[in-house]
Amino acid sequence: MCELLAMSANVPTDIVFSFTGLVERGGVTGPHVDGWGITFYEGKGCRTFKDAKPSCESEVASLIKSYPIKSCTVISHIRQANRGRVCLENTHPFTRVLWGRYWSYAHNGQLSGYKPKLKTDIYLPVGNTDSEMAFCWLMERLQQKYPKRPSNIKSAFRYAVKQADQLRELGVFNMMLSDGDYILVYCSNNLSWITRRAPFGKAQLIDTDMVVDFHQETTPNDVVTVIATRPLTDNEDWHVMKPGQWCVFRHGELIDQGG
Amino acid sequence: MCELLAMSANVPTDIVFSFTGLVERGGVTGPHVDGWGITFYEGKGCRTFKDAKPSCESEVASLIKSYPIKSCTVISHIRQANRGRVCLENTHPFTRVLWGRYWSYAHNGQLSGYKPKLKTDIYLPVGNTDSEMAFCWLMERLQQKYPKRPSNIKSAFRYAVKQADQLRELGVFNMMLSDGDYILVYCSNNLSWITRRAPFGKAQLIDTDMVVDFHQETTPNDVVTVIATRPLTDNEDWHVMKPGQWCVFRHGELIDQGG
Repeated sequence: MCELLAMSANVPTDIVFSFTGLVERGGVTGPHVDGWGITFYEGKGCRTFKDAKPSCESEVASLIKSYPIKSCTVISHIRQANRGRVCLENTHPFTRVLWGRYWSYAHNGQLSGYKPKLKTDIYLPVGNTDSEMAFCWLMERLQQKYPKRPSNIKSAFRYAVKQADQLRELGVFNMMLSDGDYILVYCSNNLSWITRRAPFGKAQLIDTDMVVDFHQETTPNDVVTVIATRPLTDNEDWHVMKPGQWCVFRHGELIDQGG
Repeated sequence: MCELLAMSANVPTDIVFSFTGLVERGGVTGPHVDGWGITFYEGKGCRTFKDAKPSCESEVASLIKSYPIKSCTVISHIRQANRGRVCLENTHPFTRVLWGRYWSYAHNGQLSGYKPKLKTDIYLPVGNTDSEMAFCWLMERLQQKYPKRPSNIKSAFRYAVKQADQLRELGVFNMMLSDGDYILVYCSNNLSWITRRAPFGKAQLIDTDMVVDFHQETTPNDVVTVIATRPLTDNEDWHVMKPGQWCVFRHGELIDQGG
């Protein structure tokens, strides 16, 4: 299984702490050794770092751990290949442009019998994973339903959830999807989240011997939500999502949910 | 004016030497201080590093200089803003998917009166530069002309050149365009290239005190073409392109040209 990680915050925040826990799962405490990737938004732009090497051995991953890029919206993924070979074009997050925004996406799970059902005309996959094919299909469904960005963006995310429900019928489909402003997370079987706000405490990573005192790192107005396949810390209360549940976050706050 | 740099090679080659010369122009020997970006292809995948900071001050640029990512196809750009503010979404190279491949593009120059002429429906810009708008228009023209990748890819590049001729009527349009396998370079007023092959010699960068002995760095079968706004070395013979001239390179070799 792959590991997903996302962050939504109301001020640019570095994700070094959570990412450090995640990369340990890429070959040290977990079996996720087939590449990893992370996308940081900065305004309407985004930057993605990816590697087909295990994250615990990757020089680019070391850069991320030591170079605190601050962002309000981050999506990350560590891959254990099941569909599609191990190569750069098969590593998540995947990005496409819809309505003049970069949309990024990462998937955890595995689909079956999907090829005839997920054919697309405009949004074409580059690699050969079920994940990217599902993303392209989702983008094309959104583009067909809303040729222009709808003024009520919540309705677009609710439409995306309906498509995700269909994808979940094809197998396991835990997903993170963002346009840089909003993050939709959709749970098929494993997804948890936590919102941190004042008064901030200390957090202890499960996967490595690291403690962060968020009180030292934040201001009283910061709101930071972290979403991950499994809780990353063992001294905080995470919301463990149920199959079919979904949440939309913006600026660290939960703004819509269902399922 | 911005600086363009591309490399086409028949074996994965690092671009550290040429990139080192280029980043000096980003605030040390040149006035190009409004961000920079570089795209490396690796199979069908690609990775892009970008920064809205001057390249000579950028930590990510330092990484590229010290971390020799090897690739057969690279496109790079240092920006001096004329159209569009200085921000991540306005930094080149830009990337879009066409025919299931990542296409990357960088532009040097400035267009006028382009907004009504370059409107698109599917390939939409994210930022607000003339460059990205021209790229989206070019992608959409190619997609409309060839809904599927043509078996004769040279014809697609020749069609792209015809579109570039139209863009050049709107101003200065030096361009680099690649699908990871081929690189099309189109000259409006400033573009030079050189193909290095055995017997390799030494090269002296113009912009910084650095000499590389390619004989030490290469094998006798290597073929490496470098394309840049202006020659990067002062002891080699570069082909200086004329307005309207274009070249297509693959695996380091010139495979088509005209203009």
